[in-house]
Amino acid sequence: MKERILTGDRITGKLHLGHYVGSLKNRVELQHQYDTFLLLADVQALTTHFDQPELIQRNLRQVAMDYLAAGIEPEKATILVQSLIPEIAELTAYFSMFVTVNALRHNPTIKAEATERGFQDMYYGFLGYPVSQTADITFCKASLVPVGEDQLPHIEQSRKIVRRFNQLYKPVLIEPRALVGEIPRLVGLDGNSKMSKSLGNAIYLDSTPEEISQQIQKATTDPARIRKSDPGHPDICPIYAYHQAFRPQGAQEIHEDCTKGQIGCSECKRKIFATINELLEPMRERRVTYQNHPKRVDEILISGTETARLAAKETMLEVREAMGMNYFAVDA
Amino acid sequence: MKERILTGDRITGKLHLGHYVGSLKNRVELQHQYDTFLLLADVQALTTHFDQPELIQRNLRQVAMDYLAAGIEPEKATILVQSLIPEIAELTAYFSMFVTVNALRHNPTIKAEATERGFQDMYYGFLGYPVSQTADITFCKASLVPVGEDQLPHIEQSRKIVRRFNQLYKPVLIEPRALVGEIPRLVGLDGNSKMSKSLGNAIYLDSTPEEISQQIQKATTDPARIRKSDPGHPDICPIYAYHQAFRPQGAQEIHEDCTKGQIGCSECKRKIFATINELLEPMRERRVTYQNHPKRVDEILISGTETARLAAKETMLEVREAMGMNYFAVDA
Ligand code: SF4
Ligand code: SF4
Repeated sequence: MKERILTGDRITGKLHLGHYVGSLKNRVELQHQYDTFLLLADVQALTTHFDQPELIQRNLRQVAMDYLAAGIEPEKATILVQSLIPEIAELTAYFSMFVTVNALRHNPTIKAEATERGFQDMYYGFLGYPVSQTADITFCKASLVPVGEDQLPHIEQSRKIVRRFNQLYKPVLIEPRALVGEIPRLVGLDGNSKMSKSLGNAIYLDSTPEEISQQIQKATTDPARIRKSDPGHPDICPIYAYHQAFRPQGAQEIHEDCTKGQIGCSECKRKIFATINELLEPMRERRVTYQNHPKRVDEILISGTETARLAAKETMLEVREAMGMNYFAVDA
Repeated sequence: MKERILTGDRITGKLHLGHYVGSLKNRVELQHQYDTFLLLADVQALTTHFDQPELIQRNLRQVAMDYLAAGIEPEKATILVQSLIPEIAELTAYFSMFVTVNALRHNPTIKAEATERGFQDMYYGFLGYPVSQTADITFCKASLVPVGEDQLPHIEQSRKIVRRFNQLYKPVLIEPRALVGEIPRLVGLDGNSKMSKSLGNAIYLDSTPEEISQQIQKATTDPARIRKSDPGHPDICPIYAYHQAFRPQGAQEIHEDCTKGQIGCSECKRKIFATINELLEPMRERRVTYQNHPKRVDEILISGTETARLAAKETMLEVREAMGMNYFAVDA
């Protein structure tokens, strides 16, 4: 029996190279070792985008397609739609009873995100997202959650909630462990430390070669370089960062040539374009297949959600029994 | 088409005369004029009793039996089990996205209850109960909620939540109105201003004549009265309060006789015992029928919950459509 991992994305936008480098690439590998549950988190997307439902709707199939294009195999991984698992909302309600407001307020990730988003007065659902995240993990009895260091407080909180549940009622839930990996962060085309949709500095996984080429041509480089012979500072150049991320075997050479003024930015950009385009080419091919068979994507999501739902129902039977809330033999 | 009302009880204990006078009597009457949904609020009971699941389990059938004994007719009213309507948890999750923590904190009823219960650090679920209460009301599109004056802030908050939902998405939910009635409060047997389980001063609806007789005999009266001829002060005597509540036609006479020292407490108590016993006698008879057919009670709850579930599913189809979350034709 493979261990189950739970991972996923808030579906607030299509995926870009930053997502690929940060998590998706890793998931494509993990799906062979683990029973992978991949959550299209539409309800969690509402915590910050409740006033943009059309954006969430649009991105459901988009992100699913990004997964499939990137190499997630529906035969290996279960892709599921969060809002179609009502058991997650039920578990959230139960966990909410014994988690204090202060414990949530003091969660460092919640604090940081609230500041980042400029929330003076937090929304109730936003404050509670570590609780619903615990429901995401526990409804399917996932034992591992791939996370970066910064997400550790959430996992710690989830573990606490599960321990408390198991101790209050019966030990039916699995205390999840963090599968801590390095979560590399990719710089944006403008040199900003983070590639992100909102900064408009992202290369999307569904880009055409022309789009990528144009974006890379317009990308920031070392502003001090005017002629090829000017010695460059690759460490402040996003293009060099991409060489490191996607073409590590050639990065050292680029660093030297740039520093010595032996390579022009155009040539350097052509090289990284070729590499990125090569990375995205098979994704593009897989995407076309699915684009030509959009029903297939729906089938994958429906079937993944059904698989997840079965797990959810089993868990809820145990949860209800543990809480003494299995009143009738015929519980829904 | 009758208007639908939503009412119910947190099932943390069996019902007593205080409940009867305060709400149940009224509900028995309302069921003829309104499509009555009567909620056995086991999830809400968890907000304060999450560590006593056995108490909630025990009281589910007990309170249901109290309803039926008091004259709630399963052919007229729909008695439903809150935890078996997962749509309530789903709606709660959606509403949570756009209700702020401060709006909940400043809810005067939440404030008062938190103080009363000595909550230094509030539980997240407790803080959010006006949100889940809104889900209780809206899942079945109830348009009226019978409440006392003190519950008006909750209904106001529910109305705000519904307005916000309807404005953010589509106007599919009904903004509920308060059906404000006088909610008489019954004093306890010890003279405390509130009859309540926790104060141990309650006459339960399932009491035997012997139990009632003993309780009334031991009840507090005017402590200044020693002999029958001592002038009494009925206004500080719980027995007089019971005369007012259950025997209003004779209360004036008791007041005069007590004040003039023309009636002994024993006689006064015998009179009120007879009245209360007469009130509970038909309840006792109905209860025996159900006690002899416990399966019938389960059938009533299962059938009521099924009826409610149908309403819930219809509402959720509209809610998902309004939010753009009806992704597939085959939504669960
Ligand atoms: S040569 Fe390459 S690494 Fe150096 S500044 Fe130009 S684009 Fe950046
Ligand atoms: S006579 Fe009745 S009302 Fe007066 S003090 Fe006695 S019990 Fe109370």
